[in-house]
Amino acid sequence: MTSHGRRRLLFVAIVTGLMTVGLVLNQGSDSAATPSSAGAASPDPVLPSWNDGAARTAILSFVDRVTRAGGPGFVPPPARIAVFDNDGTLWSEQPMYVQLAFAIDRVKALAPSHPEWAGSQPFKAALEGDLETLAASGERGLSALVMATHAGITSEEFERIVQDWIATARHPKTGRLYTEMVYQPMLELLAYLRANGFKTFIVSGGGIEFVRPWAERVYGVPPEQVIGSSVKARYEVRNGRPVLARLPEINFINDEEGKPVGIQQHIGRRPIAAFGNSDGDFQMLEWTTAGPGTRLALIVHHDDDAREAAYDRASHIGRLARGLDEAATRGWVVASIARDWKTVFPTTTPK
Amino acid sequence: MTSHGRRRLLFVAIVTGLMTVGLVLNQGSDSAATPSSAGAASPDPVLPSWNDGAARTAILSFVDRVTRAGGPGFVPPPARIAVFDNDGTLWSEQPMYVQLAFAIDRVKALAPSHPEWAGSQPFKAALEGDLETLAASGERGLSALVMATHAGITSEEFERIVQDWIATARHPKTGRLYTEMVYQPMLELLAYLRANGFKTFIVSGGGIEFVRPWAERVYGVPPEQVIGSSVKARYEVRNGRPVLARLPEINFINDEEGKPVGIQQHIGRRPIAAFGNSDGDFQMLEWTTAGPGTRLALIVHHDDDAREAAYDRASHIGRLARGLDEAATRGWVVASIARDWKTVFPTTTPK
Repeated sequence: MTSHGRRRLLFVAIVTGLMTVGLVLNQGSDSAATPSSAGAASPDPVLPSWNDGAARTAILSFVDRVTRAGGPGFVPPPARIAVFDNDGTLWSEQPMYVQLAFAIDRVKALAPSHPEWAGSQPFKAALEGDLETLAASGERGLSALVMATHAGITSEEFERIVQDWIATARHPKTGRLYTEMVYQPMLELLAYLRANGFKTFIVSGGGIEFVRPWAERVYGVPPEQVIGSSVKARYEVRNGRPVLARLPEINFINDEEGKPVGIQQHIGRRPIAAFGNSDGDFQMLEWTTAGPGTRLALIVHHDDDAREAAYDRASHIGRLARGLDEAATRGWVVASIARDWKTVFPTTTPK
Repeated sequence: MTSHGRRRLLFVAIVTGLMTVGLVLNQGSDSAATPSSAGAASPDPVLPSWNDGAARTAILSFVDRVTRAGGPGFVPPPARIAVFDNDGTLWSEQPMYVQLAFAIDRVKALAPSHPEWAGSQPFKAALEGDLETLAASGERGLSALVMATHAGITSEEFERIVQDWIATARHPKTGRLYTEMVYQPMLELLAYLRANGFKTFIVSGGGIEFVRPWAERVYGVPPEQVIGSSVKARYEVRNGRPVLARLPEINFINDEEGKPVGIQQHIGRRPIAAFGNSDGDFQMLEWTTAGPGTRLALIVHHDDDAREAAYDRASHIGRLARGLDEAATRGWVVASIARDWKTVFPTTTPK
């Protein structure tokens, strides 16, 4: 397959993540979530939702080293760049990527203006919630789905659509808002790093304009610190009013080898800390830790079927194999949700 | 011409800016520069190198409005985004774009490894300093020049090359370092906006990786707040060491209609203040001022042949025609260097 073809396929896989096997096998339950102890019993207010253990210790030790003025690991604040994957690292990606749920809902919303979709795949399958047929529509079908739901409108229109959707759309299993399906330990980690002079970036395989509208409110990450996949855009003046038209053409795929490229394009310097959960983040962690000086790479391992979901090597969403195999020799931390996280999801509703 | 062809041509024009007429006509003198009065006689420490006048008043009034809590024009700090063109807005672009001087010097540095260049255009012309022939080599020749000097190496190598070059290369007329050919009033403006809660971005038609290595030191703008034109890059692991290889292929042209696209891609929200000097900045100013609420757009008008250079409508570097024609009706401020700037260049060496 050509590089271009492979990248298009990747994009489709990222946005949709449609796997019949994965859909069935990877559904964890949120019902056993432990209440957060944040600010209550814990004598230590730092990372209260992290259990004592190797992962938490590695984070604290890293931050201590890079912030200790005069110490051998000191990193001046402007170079304290931390990058976070989004799906599966900051919020749940099971049982399907949130952006796929958005695309399906968007097809339903647009259907009245597209009567032809009732008899045309992959739209018919999306309308009927037939994920298996949707997946079977292949690259061409899924590309059509993505472009019909993510392009053909202006950036401002798309932002408003995402904002409206994310304000009410709910997780199919837990019934909670998707913005409540974020990981409490990771929210604490984002805040802890920022309190120690870090600039935190999201480096998502998902759409950059899909994450930006709510990333500041939910994660404290402003739009200019969100990196993601994108479609091309064109500047147009329509009746005297300038707009950015989103075109049905892929601009950039921010996954796997694309993540270090996206990081360099947006940030222009190498991060010193990287957080991911799948092999789509492998190169980002590799790039981060290949730099000189003190570095931290951490993989969130989804091994808690009771509180969230258990998946790694066999999963088609967030597959994690190479990362598990090589973490030890590379000095990367593997955080076990079951073992390292006192709580998984916030017990209070984020803003 | 195809859109792609037009964009390639633009890139070449941006990077090289080779105009025989422009080169001859647009050479101003720096010798009459007025000494800076910064921090000395002026009773007002704000923007000391700006003369009292409409431009300075417009800036102060804008900042006052957007920072006045509870006022009708208040803008919360996260939305205080200001964008600055670089060439001709923050530093001198005469008698040639600095990046062209870099490309020519780079050809000379690489020539020993390329004996074939002695008899092959446009390299022969570059080696001989024959700018007229260089310009005559056309799009294909200039593309070859840019790619030979800006691609084929890693991002880290390119950064080091730029850093080494910018540390010693000097302006052909004044003999000063290029980083001393920055505009003192604009340095003050950058600092003034930041002191008022703004995030300042550079939005350059030039190469993003050409500006980043020195933008923080000279302008106080970190790499992640620099936007520019770029070549494509590829992530590769070479003997176990990951690199980002710069490819001889254009990725993005950040000029004219490209500037709002680049701004959206990098920043993800519309600026409230924009500063430029040429029609290459027109769309950036248009996009900025088309948003709701309080906005500021300012054009630096190069009308001071004694202290810098006088050029606008007829110039091939930094041509300014539409901006001058439409500024008044659009409410954009035109700052005259002759009238509005007490001093042009810093009298002390920047860091």
